[in-house]
Amino acid sequence: MNFKTWFSSDSLKISKFQDISKKILLDPLTSRIISGLESTYQRLEIFGSQLAATIEQIMMDDSDLVTLEQIKEAHSYLKSQTDMVRTPTLMHVQSLFEEHLSHCKPGEDIDLFMKMENMQTTGSFKIRGVLNQMRKVEEHYGEEAQLVTMSAGNYGKAFAHCLKNRANKSVCYMPVTTPKNRVATIEGMGVEVRQAETEELQPCVDRLVAKEGYIMCHSFDDVDLIAGYGSSAFELLQDVPDPDIVLVCCGGGGLVSGVAATLSLTGHRNCRVYAVEPEGAASMKESFKARRPVKLSKVSTVAGGLAPPYAGAITYKHCHWFVQDVLVVTDAEILEALKALYTRGIRAEPSGCAALAALFAGKVPDVAGKKVVVYVTGGNVSCTELRKFIGEEES
Amino acid sequence: MNFKTWFSSDSLKISKFQDISKKILLDPLTSRIISGLESTYQRLEIFGSQLAATIEQIMMDDSDLVTLEQIKEAHSYLKSQTDMVRTPTLMHVQSLFEEHLSHCKPGEDIDLFMKMENMQTTGSFKIRGVLNQMRKVEEHYGEEAQLVTMSAGNYGKAFAHCLKNRANKSVCYMPVTTPKNRVATIEGMGVEVRQAETEELQPCVDRLVAKEGYIMCHSFDDVDLIAGYGSSAFELLQDVPDPDIVLVCCGGGGLVSGVAATLSLTGHRNCRVYAVEPEGAASMKESFKARRPVKLSKVSTVAGGLAPPYAGAITYKHCHWFVQDVLVVTDAEILEALKALYTRGIRAEPSGCAALAALFAGKVPDVAGKKVVVYVTGGNVSCTELRKFIGEEES
Repeated sequence: MNFKTWFSSDSLKISKFQDISKKILLDPLTSRIISGLESTYQRLEIFGSQLAATIEQIMMDDSDLVTLEQIKEAHSYLKSQTDMVRTPTLMHVQSLFEEHLSHCKPGEDIDLFMKMENMQTTGSFKIRGVLNQMRKVEEHYGEEAQLVTMSAGNYGKAFAHCLKNRANKSVCYMPVTTPKNRVATIEGMGVEVRQAETEELQPCVDRLVAKEGYIMCHSFDDVDLIAGYGSSAFELLQDVPDPDIVLVCCGGGGLVSGVAATLSLTGHRNCRVYAVEPEGAASMKESFKARRPVKLSKVSTVAGGLAPPYAGAITYKHCHWFVQDVLVVTDAEILEALKALYTRGIRAEPSGCAALAALFAGKVPDVAGKKVVVYVTGGNVSCTELRKFIGEEES
Repeated sequence: MNFKTWFSSDSLKISKFQDISKKILLDPLTSRIISGLESTYQRLEIFGSQLAATIEQIMMDDSDLVTLEQIKEAHSYLKSQTDMVRTPTLMHVQSLFEEHLSHCKPGEDIDLFMKMENMQTTGSFKIRGVLNQMRKVEEHYGEEAQLVTMSAGNYGKAFAHCLKNRANKSVCYMPVTTPKNRVATIEGMGVEVRQAETEELQPCVDRLVAKEGYIMCHSFDDVDLIAGYGSSAFELLQDVPDPDIVLVCCGGGGLVSGVAATLSLTGHRNCRVYAVEPEGAASMKESFKARRPVKLSKVSTVAGGLAPPYAGAITYKHCHWFVQDVLVVTDAEILEALKALYTRGIRAEPSGCAALAALFAGKVPDVAGKKVVVYVTGGNVSCTELRKFIGEEES
């Protein structure tokens, strides 16, 4: 049976036409041709988008991009700081999450590594950036600069931790909805907390800067933060010298910017770095679509630490330059990953689980047989919250 | 100033005698001599006890001791079981616990490794032993043997997990005080739970064995369990080929027996393995003192999983043969270690923290500059219990 036979003159009767159509569609050759065309089309599409990105990069202003020098300098400074620790990497832990990785076909197992930034001092990666940011602020404005920031979470905790043995007068603006224990943590380290409605936070900070000469410390859109975050990638490369794929949770985008920049600038250009955002606060995804940093009209996600309502101009530029793509996960997928980690003895907050959630949900392209690194970025979750997230009954 | 001058004839007046005595005591040479004598005495004492132990070992019956062959066979079987996972080791994590290791002098830092058995399937190391125990039961008694055990905790959970896809009729006796959720977990996997007063548990099991032909699966005093637990040491040696000190939490003593036997039998005879017990249930410590396995009249500790009221005959023999010594920690020290792990994003139950507690409390001899491995043996603790243990306020 072949195409020639089907189209021979005596077959060309209307009555046989439907039969022939069916046979053509069911013929293995047909399906091979179709899938070949599909695959060629996919490759063309990927090639086209890579070409467009390359052209855009060539034409783009790279003046705000972090340099390898800045990252190395930050890394070297941070290594001397006892406040920051060298976080471990869990090596080859795919078997711990076998049921969540069942979408991987047999023989196409991934080799899974997890960079445990939830084990960092203050419970998240933030202190890497903040220590470097403070060093730069001190260089520019002296040791007694008055500092102001706004944060509902991990940045604020790291900010306060870094300031607890310094003399700087400092203020942290927090939303009125912030849980009391978080306010207490930050006040306990000597930073004044002022609370305001979410939309009033930025104007409050601006007033303090304009009227009282405070220095604003941005919680994500800052090259010195990005350089500090890059230090984690240097550590990662010691443990996993040749990762194929690195998945990083993305809120403001500081960490993923630092990690992707470090990997690219140290020559790991074939390593794909993906930013992972929650569906309800996908500002970087929207920015990628719009090809400029955008602001969302509202955000809603269980991952509070990944919910700034806009992408930073600097982090957007870094992501655009160094990050392969932005992946989006649902709250349910995030909590599924949180539960899986909890079952395996790891305490992670929802914001810290987004990258793993993308892997579990099968949203990472072309993972088969690859060395995949997942960043677990934060562990600041109370027992009460944990109980709710994992659905534990009162005992 | 030297001894000769002090004892010259004109100094030998009674009035000067006290002065001279003082000077002798304060002289640096004197303190060097005293500390030299002390150290010699300590070494003699250690040598003496090692000699005694060696003589005892030579004279002791080694018929119940696990062999390297048994451990290798168990390891090879377990590697083929998808239920068990290869747990990761946290490498070089001393900086994460710097404040808890402040008793280490500068320049004498330890190199800290943590074998994360809390990440094992069922949340503890137990499944390693139980899978091997079941294999042997099946070999001896066939696939349909009726099984009975008694356990209030992790052994029971692993027992039920291993049986959930098997046809065996099985009963687990639990104390009447066992929390409902633990009973539910085990019943949920198809094992019948019967509850009785603690002192009635063993007689109940014995009756079932005598009258209905059930096979008793011991929760710790069993060579097949010990062989299975040895598999974790094979994994450890892949990650840390030459540990100096290994600290293992000790309840019944199965895990520490398996780990110590494996290290010794594979030629790591200079590696010191310590069993760590809670003060309120130190049955192995008391057995070491009495030079035979003893039963305690009562136990009381926050570490329920380390609280069997007696040392097993088989595990005692293994500990006596392979374990350097038994260290004892208080409940407060255990909870301190639990909090430290929790702060660093690790969920461990009190029973899983005893080994780390011994290190933090400075109870491990001669650790300076050593490669120290700590077993974190279990993570089965509910959010409600965690909140109580770490003293978190309602939020």
